[in-house]
Amino acid sequence: MTVTALLGEIADVGRDGRRGGYSRHGFAPVEGELRTWFVEQAQRRGLDVRTDRNGNLWAWWGTPGPNAVITGSHLDSVPGGGAFDGPLGVAASLSAVDLLRSGGFQPGRPLAIGVFSEEEGGRFGVPCLGSRLMTGSLDPDAARRLTDSDGITLAEAASSAGVDPARFGRDDEALADIGCFVELHVEQGRAMDLLDDRPSVAVASSILAHGRWRFTVTGVGNHAGTTEVPDRRDPMLPAAAAVLAARRALGGRAGARATVGRLTPTPGGTNVIASSVDFWLDARAPEEAPVREVVEEITAAARAAAAEEGCELSVRQESFGDTVLFDPALRDRLAAELGGVPVLPTGAGHDAGILASRVPTAMLFVRNPTGISHAPAEHAEPADCEAGAAALARTLESLCRDEP
Amino acid sequence: MTVTALLGEIADVGRDGRRGGYSRHGFAPVEGELRTWFVEQAQRRGLDVRTDRNGNLWAWWGTPGPNAVITGSHLDSVPGGGAFDGPLGVAASLSAVDLLRSGGFQPGRPLAIGVFSEEEGGRFGVPCLGSRLMTGSLDPDAARRLTDSDGITLAEAASSAGVDPARFGRDDEALADIGCFVELHVEQGRAMDLLDDRPSVAVASSILAHGRWRFTVTGVGNHAGTTEVPDRRDPMLPAAAAVLAARRALGGRAGARATVGRLTPTPGGTNVIASSVDFWLDARAPEEAPVREVVEEITAAARAAAAEEGCELSVRQESFGDTVLFDPALRDRLAAELGGVPVLPTGAGHDAGILASRVPTAMLFVRNPTGISHAPAEHAEPADCEAGAAALARTLESLCRDEP
Repeated sequence: MTVTALLGEIADVGRDGRRGGYSRHGFAPVEGELRTWFVEQAQRRGLDVRTDRNGNLWAWWGTPGPNAVITGSHLDSVPGGGAFDGPLGVAASLSAVDLLRSGGFQPGRPLAIGVFSEEEGGRFGVPCLGSRLMTGSLDPDAARRLTDSDGITLAEAASSAGVDPARFGRDDEALADIGCFVELHVEQGRAMDLLDDRPSVAVASSILAHGRWRFTVTGVGNHAGTTEVPDRRDPMLPAAAAVLAARRALGGRAGARATVGRLTPTPGGTNVIASSVDFWLDARAPEEAPVREVVEEITAAARAAAAEEGCELSVRQESFGDTVLFDPALRDRLAAELGGVPVLPTGAGHDAGILASRVPTAMLFVRNPTGISHAPAEHAEPADCEAGAAALARTLESLCRDEP
Repeated sequence: MTVTALLGEIADVGRDGRRGGYSRHGFAPVEGELRTWFVEQAQRRGLDVRTDRNGNLWAWWGTPGPNAVITGSHLDSVPGGGAFDGPLGVAASLSAVDLLRSGGFQPGRPLAIGVFSEEEGGRFGVPCLGSRLMTGSLDPDAARRLTDSDGITLAEAASSAGVDPARFGRDDEALADIGCFVELHVEQGRAMDLLDDRPSVAVASSILAHGRWRFTVTGVGNHAGTTEVPDRRDPMLPAAAAVLAARRALGGRAGARATVGRLTPTPGGTNVIASSVDFWLDARAPEEAPVREVVEEITAAARAAAAEEGCELSVRQESFGDTVLFDPALRDRLAAELGGVPVLPTGAGHDAGILASRVPTAMLFVRNPTGISHAPAEHAEPADCEAGAAALARTLESLCRDEP
């Protein structure tokens, strides 16, 4: 099946009428629907599907075992996200299996498609939840206690989705089987499209150091009409100061990004001075040091504004991942075998970035004509998607021919 | 029954586990539960309960008719509001009827308790919805089209609550029966508590001019990690600039207030640059002119910041009410009859402020020891609540003795 046909099958699952695009969150019924779809697709291809301790799915072609070649991606989305971030890699993996099989290929190494849980952190705040749990970079106790915006814990959500949260944790058995991992993904910038030949496929070189910080400003909730300025302790003011500081902090720091895209005043009434405001800072840079500097600068601005308004500020790191340099040998080999495609860095995090600390890992990107991602306008041309699946098939075939 | 006993009966209805306090919104099942409670209480007292065209309840002691003395308040709350704003006036009205009846009083004029719909505008954005519809100050077509945050229209919500929205509109028949209106309410500032004798009860003199404006900043949703600064059109920045401008705009304008307590980025993901941000400005001042100046100044700041970021800005007035001066004769009479209680202005809007444009209207305030309102910490001492009910009973008795 083509990538376009596969994505067409799930085009109506998890549409978000309010935000536009898709809201497909980890361990939610909509993600469950997508996982069921994946399992059916895998079974139609004779793949043997297993769920690991952390809720990740593995569809095996051949007997599971050491030195396996793994591809795959994720099915969840950010709130109001696009159709490609995640599902493109899953659909391309299924399509690549079809291409390999129609060519009469039989893998000489175990081959599997992995589907990772809650890659976006759109529900529980920690991105790459499934791969972080598997590699041991996220403490399972801390993970079980994570809550979504309705106060449901990850432990509860996992149980509802049929995954036993008591089994969460570093999965050395699963990791021991992975010989290498290749994730195909839509590009999330416009670097490929701006190249003269607008290539369909590129290979990833690196991922920015990046993390998430939750800021909570606590003031005093009160009546918007009766509370005069000297009596106000309005947490919206320090929050607004931090949003502006996030932009200022980027000045002179090449490649740094800082974003506040989620901000929630409590209680959130028009005629009510908020009692508290939570907001989340996403900060990234080529190395860890400038990320820390940016966060410190924004924290200092928020703290000064909070003090001025008589509010309290607390800041908590929700996740951090250092700069990822993908395996240089694998990167160069893939780029060469695919005909000298470009090698590009990315500012986006991926499960591949988490697995890169444990196994040789690579990524293929498919061109994004506008560069927009994490939004309904995210796009990839059908021809580029099919070219991506073909490139992935070629890569998997080559990797499976390696001697262990 | 005492006010405390009456409020105790509804103490568990509509608690908001996330925000604290109560979320009891107009035409929602929780408000319906409170209305059912009120109807039962009224019927136990032999009052004849009717629902008017706009969903307001009227519990009549005696035959409905012209020159009636009306008291009452509302049962809905802001999101995460306190236990007193609204329900105190309804409970005090019921308790006042009990006090009058136990004294053998028989009203010489029709007497009724009114319960108005969606006074806070916590669900559909327009405060004093029921009284505005009744007095004709809100267009019924515009009202029917109002939507809550889930996209449910007021017309749909009213139908679900058993109120026919086709009948919404100015209700001259109901207005013609009202001889005068007296609303008892918890004070929403600390003016009474700061007086030397900390009186239980006061009489209102005026309400600030006040309104609500919805600001929508539209940018371009994109990936927080891959989008570099020159490519960002992030609507959070103009929104933050407006929040800070709201505070700056108050400088030098005595008695002016401007608050942004509700702000919603869409889609609201941590790793997503928002595509748009909606926020609501609540602005008030002793007269209309400074309110308009404040709104213009904040709008100008938001517009400049939006232009700098490449975002669009739209601003829409959701409601406006000019300064209310309560009927001077009624005000002075009540203050004198209650033993010379203080006469105080308020910054809070009330149904009494809407009705004041059509009928002689007064308000009684009950002391609030901290001044906090629209928040879980809102409080009134039991003794002050009972004193309020006694003062209301005395007022109703006096008004009922007037010749038509």
